[in-house]
Parts: sequence; C-alpha cells; structure tokens
Amino acid sequence: MKNIITIGGGNGQPVVLRALKEIDDIDIKAIVTTMDDGGSTGRLREELDILPPGDVMKCALALSSCENKLSEFLLKRFSGDNKLKGHSAGNMLLSMMVKYLGSYDEAINSLSEHLKSRGKVIPVTNKKTVLRAKYNNGDIVNGEHKIDEPVNSNKNSKIQKLSIEPIVPANKYAVEAIQNADYIFLGPGDLYTSVIANFVVPDIKEAISKAKAKIYYFMNLMTKKGQTHNLGAKKIVQELEKYLGRRINGIIINSDTISKSFISRYEKADEKPILDNLKNDIRTIRTSLLSRNFIFKDKNDTLSRSILKHDSLKIKKVILKIIK
Amino acid sequence: MKNIITIGGGNGQPVVLRALKEIDDIDIKAIVTTMDDGGSTGRLREELDILPPGDVMKCALALSSCENKLSEFLLKRFSGDNKLKGHSAGNMLLSMMVKYLGSYDEAINSLSEHLKSRGKVIPVTNKKTVLRAKYNNGDIVNGEHKIDEPVNSNKNSKIQKLSIEPIVPANKYAVEAIQNADYIFLGPGDLYTSVIANFVVPDIKEAISKAKAKIYYFMNLMTKKGQTHNLGAKKIVQELEKYLGRRINGIIINSDTISKSFISRYEKADEKPILDNLKNDIRTIRTSLLSRNFIFKDKNDTLSRSILKHDSLKIKKVILKIIK
Repeated sequence: MKNIITIGGGNGQPVVLRALKEIDDIDIKAIVTTMDDGGSTGRLREELDILPPGDVMKCALALSSCENKLSEFLLKRFSGDNKLKGHSAGNMLLSMMVKYLGSYDEAINSLSEHLKSRGKVIPVTNKKTVLRAKYNNGDIVNGEHKIDEPVNSNKNSKIQKLSIEPIVPANKYAVEAIQNADYIFLGPGDLYTSVIANFVVPDIKEAISKAKAKIYYFMNLMTKKGQTHNLGAKKIVQELEKYLGRRINGIIINSDTISKSFISRYEKADEKPILDNLKNDIRTIRTSLLSRNFIFKDKNDTLSRSILKHDSLKIKKVILKIIK
Repeated sequence: MKNIITIGGGNGQPVVLRALKEIDDIDIKAIVTTMDDGGSTGRLREELDILPPGDVMKCALALSSCENKLSEFLLKRFSGDNKLKGHSAGNMLLSMMVKYLGSYDEAINSLSEHLKSRGKVIPVTNKKTVLRAKYNNGDIVNGEHKIDEPVNSNKNSKIQKLSIEPIVPANKYAVEAIQNADYIFLGPGDLYTSVIANFVVPDIKEAISKAKAKIYYFMNLMTKKGQTHNLGAKKIVQELEKYLGRRINGIIINSDTISKSFISRYEKADEKPILDNLKNDIRTIRTSLLSRNFIFKDKNDTLSRSILKHDSLKIKKVILKIIK
C-alpha cells in the first residue's frame, strides 16, 4: 500500500483529495495549514480561541463518501441577519467538536469518521501562530488574510521572506506522515498562504528534507496578486524549492487553453495564466487539467475565490500514471 | 391559509411534521417540549447550560426538504471512544449555534432556514424547568429521563400528577401559535413526557383553553411502562383532556393489525397494543396508520426507542381529510 500525502490548504487541496479518494489501495493523508485567519474561520479562531476550522473541514469533506449529499449543507454560508452570517454549518460543527473534546486532532478524527472519509486530515501544527510576510519594498505584513488579500501598496510587491511568529512545533502526526510518505503532492493553491505556509514550520521543512518521498507540484492555473504577480512557472518552482529545502521531482502543468472570456475576467484583477517557461525542464508533466465547472462566489462569502480550477478526474489520471 | 400546529416532542412529532410538510398551502408550526434531560441532549443541557437540542433538531429536520440527504449525518450517533460518543452531529451543531448566538429561538430559526425547512419549530419555553411526576404509590420523581425510563418500583405505577418545577412562562411564540391555530395535532408520543409535558406549562394550558382551534390526537400504537401501562384509549384521552383543560375534537386510532411477532417483542417489556375501548365515542377516527418500516435501535443510542411507528403518508391522508 502506497502512502500518499497532500500538503496544502485553501480550496486547491480538496480538489486533489477528491481525486485520491477514488484511487484504490493507497493510504491518504492531508496535511493542512492552520494559519488561516480570514473569513468565517478567522472569526471563529478569534472568538472561540480554537485553530481555524475551514480548511480542515473542506479536506475532510473532500475525502468523504457522502460529499455530494452533505457539501451544500456543510459549506453553504448562513445568510440570516445575525452573528452567524458568513459562517458555514461545517465550521460551526467542527468548532463545537474541538471545544467539546478539547483536542483538535481528536475532533478531526471524529468528524472524518462521521463523514465516512477515507484517510486522515492532519493540521500542520496544533499551536497558534501567525504568518508573516516581508515584501521586497520593506513592508512587513502579519496574518494570512492580510497577505492573501493585500492592500494596494503590496499588491505588486514580491514576498521576500515568509515566516511564522512565534515559531511553533509541528503536529507530530504531520511529521510522521511525511516520514512515511511515498509520494507528496503539493498545490494547487495560493503559493505562499496555502502551500509554503506549511514549510515555514521548521519541523516540517526538516522532515521534508529527509523524506524518501517523491514530491510533485500542481502548478496553479493563474497568477495571483500579492503572491505570484508576474511570476512564471520557473520562478514559482524555485521559490517553492527554497522553502522546501530540496528539489521537486515533478511539476504538473495544465495544457488546456484558457478561453479569452476567462482571461479577460482575470485581467481586471491584473492576473493572468502562469507563463510556462519550463520548456527545458525534464521534470515537467504537461496535461489537460482544467475543470469545465467554474466556481462563482457565494453571496455570503467574504473572501475572493478562483473561478477556474483543476478537475479532479483529470488529476486522478495524472496521479495514477505517477504512482503506478 | 390554514394554520396547523403540532405540539409534542420525542420521535412521534417528526412523523406528523413529515406528513405536514407535504401538504400545500398550510402554515406549519411545531411546539416542542424542552424538558428532555436524557441521552445526548441531557448531557449537553447539563454540560453546556443550554436548552436540550435533540427534539428541536429532529423537528427541524423532519420539516426540511433536504431531510433524506442529511438525516443520517445529523442524527447518527458518534461512535468513537471519546466524550462525543452518543451525541449526534445535529445536536452538536445546534448546541454551538445556541451558544454562539445566545438565543435558542434565533438558533432554531437559522438552523431551519439552513435546512430549507418549512414552517417554524418553537420550544415550548425558553426557561429551564424540570418535569416532576407524582405516582399513585406516593413516589415523586424529578426529571424527564427518570420518568421516561422508570426504576422498577414505578414501572407499574400510574402518574397521578405531572408538573414542572419551577413554574416557568411559556415561549411567547408558542402562545401566539396556539392563539392563531386552526388545527392542533397532538401525539403520537409518550403521553406524559412528550405530549402532556407541554401542557403543564400554565401559559400553554391557558392558551389551549381559549384557543379556537380543533384539537386532534394521534393515539399511540402501544402502551408504555411507567406512562400508559395497562391504560386503554378511553382513559388515555381522559388523562390528556385533564391536562388540556378542554375536550379533544378527534381521536385518531390505528386500525391495522399488529403482527404477533411484534406483539411478542413488546410483551417482553410488558407492553401491548392500546385497547381501543372508544367504540361509542363519535370523535374516533379509525384508519390504517402503521408504518411498514420498523425502527431498530442504533447501537450508540442509550435510550429505548419504539420499534413500531406511524406512517407519515398515512398520517398525511387522514390530516388532509380533517382539514379539507
């Protein structure tokens, strides 16, 4: 049985997990950032003094055999005119389970079991810490949410150094999963706030540097202001490897054409398809990855979301080729 | 538009609500006991200092257009080896919403909206109070759960007087619903702990006595130790009317034969089909009501449950005839 792990956060990681849950005879573990402090999850983190529930909830649901039945109820935001507005039922439920059990790990395991989820979802750390970005213009910004949706002055800046404050130990189950992994899949997802956020936990970087696993990276479809603005694929891989402390074994890039109408939507936010300048890199796997289902924002959702996303079935195909 | 309300608790009331949600052009309100202190709900009531979530959750779900998709996830008990064991995800979620909003009424409304439920679920009171039973052997027992599952000495006793301690005001929305009701449906459900429990709140009894609504009672299928042990239908109706302070307009009794194998299962607990001794009572409506789906207890459920239950489609038919 092959041990497959994903490391990430946000809305990209569930797309890969949805692919993995359809593959037989593999052990699946999802290591998830716990630095999110935006939206519903950020409010709950603040108000209830718990680790953020959102990304973990989405991963557990993506691994669930009941996902189709439950996702609307669990992920849809409350719309009423009260304090619940913007929260999801899933976030409320997981928060209650964490508070009630007094253990984030235990709450996630109970939730996963109740959802009939395959595999395990593991928070990268059980300690509270805050992401810190130092930009090339000298600015320092604290907090995942502020880095993810930067103010004007940092929209065009590059992140020179991402770190956490304070330094915290990793979840021992995350370190263990990395040690035992045969394959590690990173991305898609926001380069700094969803992917690299995991590797600025020193124990994780150390585990990765020693890991026997092969590491594959799903390159994002589009650049993102404040994170990968104007970066090409080559630079993105270099940046990721800097934080990993080792080389990536494979870079999986979408080969589907993105239609002009979508490109012009993104252009309004000064974002564009990531330039594939990895022509001479033998590690590159180019394949059709674009989903034909486009995501539009829930009106009660306060965060920005991607319209274009990867397709789980296509991801499944490429993963099957890699691990066969 | 006719205003239809049910008053009850436990597992009987949702069966009637499931019927009502399929009837067009009616306004539905469910008034639910809040004296439950057994099982998951009792523990949460104690530990979190909230009103019990269980019966309200079941009613909101019964009125939901997503019931089929969500009921397993929300009602199934956690089975793990931790403090969650025996709780349902629905109870955890509603508890969180109550704690977070600081209002039971508001939490129920938000939950109902999120579940796409028709109608409203209204706790009979928002104040904490405890059921008290005085038996004909002189014993006094406090607490719904203890009355519902009596110790040996009271199993064969009759309840002489049910009351609440302390006396609390009713939820104003419950009183309002009774005032505006055209039809009130009571039962099926445990005579004292699910049905009469609502009428020992003095404001409710007063509202009922003045109500213009016609009142119909779904007679239970089987007697229950500690509540209706050895009582026939006639005596049950008299007992109910004593607490209502007025006459019931219709008594709806099952006419289906209960198979011997089920009778012998119940006989082990000294329970039997309720004797229909209302032959000369013109208020009686005899019709097929028995469900062909039999309920067996979840292994993580600590409470006793009925095996036989009423059928929602059959209930719908009889309600349609009554309100047409």
